[in-house]
Amino acid sequence: MQFIAAAVQMLATSDKEANLREAEGWIRRAHAEGARLVVLPEVFNWRGRGADTAAHAEPVPGPSTERMSALAAELGLYLLAGSVLEAADTEGRAYNTSVLIGPGAGIVAKYRKIHLFEVDIEGEAPIRESEYRRPGDAVVVADTPLCPMGLSVCYDLRFPELYRRLAAAGARVIFVPSVFTVPTGRAHWEALLRARAIENQVYIIAPDQTGRHPASMDAYGHSMIVDPWGKIIAEAGTEPGLVWAEIDLAYLEEVRRRLPALDHRKGFLLDR
Amino acid sequence: MQFIAAAVQMLATSDKEANLREAEGWIRRAHAEGARLVVLPEVFNWRGRGADTAAHAEPVPGPSTERMSALAAELGLYLLAGSVLEAADTEGRAYNTSVLIGPGAGIVAKYRKIHLFEVDIEGEAPIRESEYRRPGDAVVVADTPLCPMGLSVCYDLRFPELYRRLAAAGARVIFVPSVFTVPTGRAHWEALLRARAIENQVYIIAPDQTGRHPASMDAYGHSMIVDPWGKIIAEAGTEPGLVWAEIDLAYLEEVRRRLPALDHRKGFLLDR
Repeated sequence: MQFIAAAVQMLATSDKEANLREAEGWIRRAHAEGARLVVLPEVFNWRGRGADTAAHAEPVPGPSTERMSALAAELGLYLLAGSVLEAADTEGRAYNTSVLIGPGAGIVAKYRKIHLFEVDIEGEAPIRESEYRRPGDAVVVADTPLCPMGLSVCYDLRFPELYRRLAAAGARVIFVPSVFTVPTGRAHWEALLRARAIENQVYIIAPDQTGRHPASMDAYGHSMIVDPWGKIIAEAGTEPGLVWAEIDLAYLEEVRRRLPALDHRKGFLLDR
Repeated sequence: MQFIAAAVQMLATSDKEANLREAEGWIRRAHAEGARLVVLPEVFNWRGRGADTAAHAEPVPGPSTERMSALAAELGLYLLAGSVLEAADTEGRAYNTSVLIGPGAGIVAKYRKIHLFEVDIEGEAPIRESEYRRPGDAVVVADTPLCPMGLSVCYDLRFPELYRRLAAAGARVIFVPSVFTVPTGRAHWEALLRARAIENQVYIIAPDQTGRHPASMDAYGHSMIVDPWGKIIAEAGTEPGLVWAEIDLAYLEEVRRRLPALDHRKGFLLDR
């Protein structure tokens, strides 16, 4: 099995309709380039002030995912709606939910981001994702006709144990839709994405948001697709746009046959 | 606490006495540069044909580690004897054992490499470490007056679960003495070392062997020290030699305070 996957790099603002239209444009472009899988970044449909979360959260399925489902059906492709804020409770908090949509059946899988981002970078405003969002607690791998796909979001990337679970459940492609900060992006993005690909011998597809945001933090860009040997096979700069690469599952199996590191995992280190 | 740590890059041959003399020379040089911790690469005291393993394995403590202990005592420093082949059984196999030696008390800790290297790189001879070596089964962190130190060896680097255990046990510095192949070194060495440092917010000290070996595989070199933010603070080329850097535990704690990712680990992903 071989297929083209595309990662969309964009800057979502607090204008949801404009974001959905922009995403739709990139998805159509990716389809025209032959993509059978298109991956959008985290919170692709809305980014604004944390205090406005409740007003913009949606159910899943809901308006944004239904619009994406109709587009996936029209174009006949798999689409990761990187994440949407999914209405969670009456206190105005939302799950940060990544949604995999198929060409026929609408939503195939949804994953609620497990690790919420809390950081104090020197010279930047503190970030407290948990103030307006709730964490998920389930590991999600979706079996699709293309291949089994593992779901994760942004800050999850720092927790190798999640990716071990996704690989153990059979994932061959793992998504990391993100809004990485500029300083942590510069320092950590490439090394962590490549390490997750190398140690789990999977393809990593990581679309990031990019650029200056009027009401939220700036994002790093550099959306990336990494192959199971750790090679960067597609990389964006800092402009909005599309990158794509071939996902080659025969190559993945060849990497695993030559360096069978996954067979060398020790149960006593995985179980506690 | 701040101190200078040095990593020794060398090419060990099947002449054990020459290897020990070379190591001693680098250790004295590192001491002259102010190092309080010197880290030697994997199998620094002997590298030859697998079939000759039994003839060159030693007990631990044994001749090589006693010589290193005497030197550590003389110079008043901590010394990681990267690894020695430790006689294990009557079938001629050995443990690949990393030995931490203190300035006063001789051996402080020993760690038997858990993950043995088996690989078929295109255009290279197959490698089957388990043919002549036995795996260990214990995770080792040594508490020292400098800081708690975690032990690992080479191929272990591909298994993030081991480093999660070392970090959970308190390690602030983790050793990865290695003999990395040239193709896997080029493709994986830097990304994996940096990821282990970033995700566990520790210093990684990784001395590698280097260069063409007459009776065994060529080694990659590029010995490295990485700080808890993932920055490479010392890196060798491909020549034998010494690199050193300052280990600053206050900086490490500052990284952990600003980005408390270790506090965000989820028990349900770590326990199975």
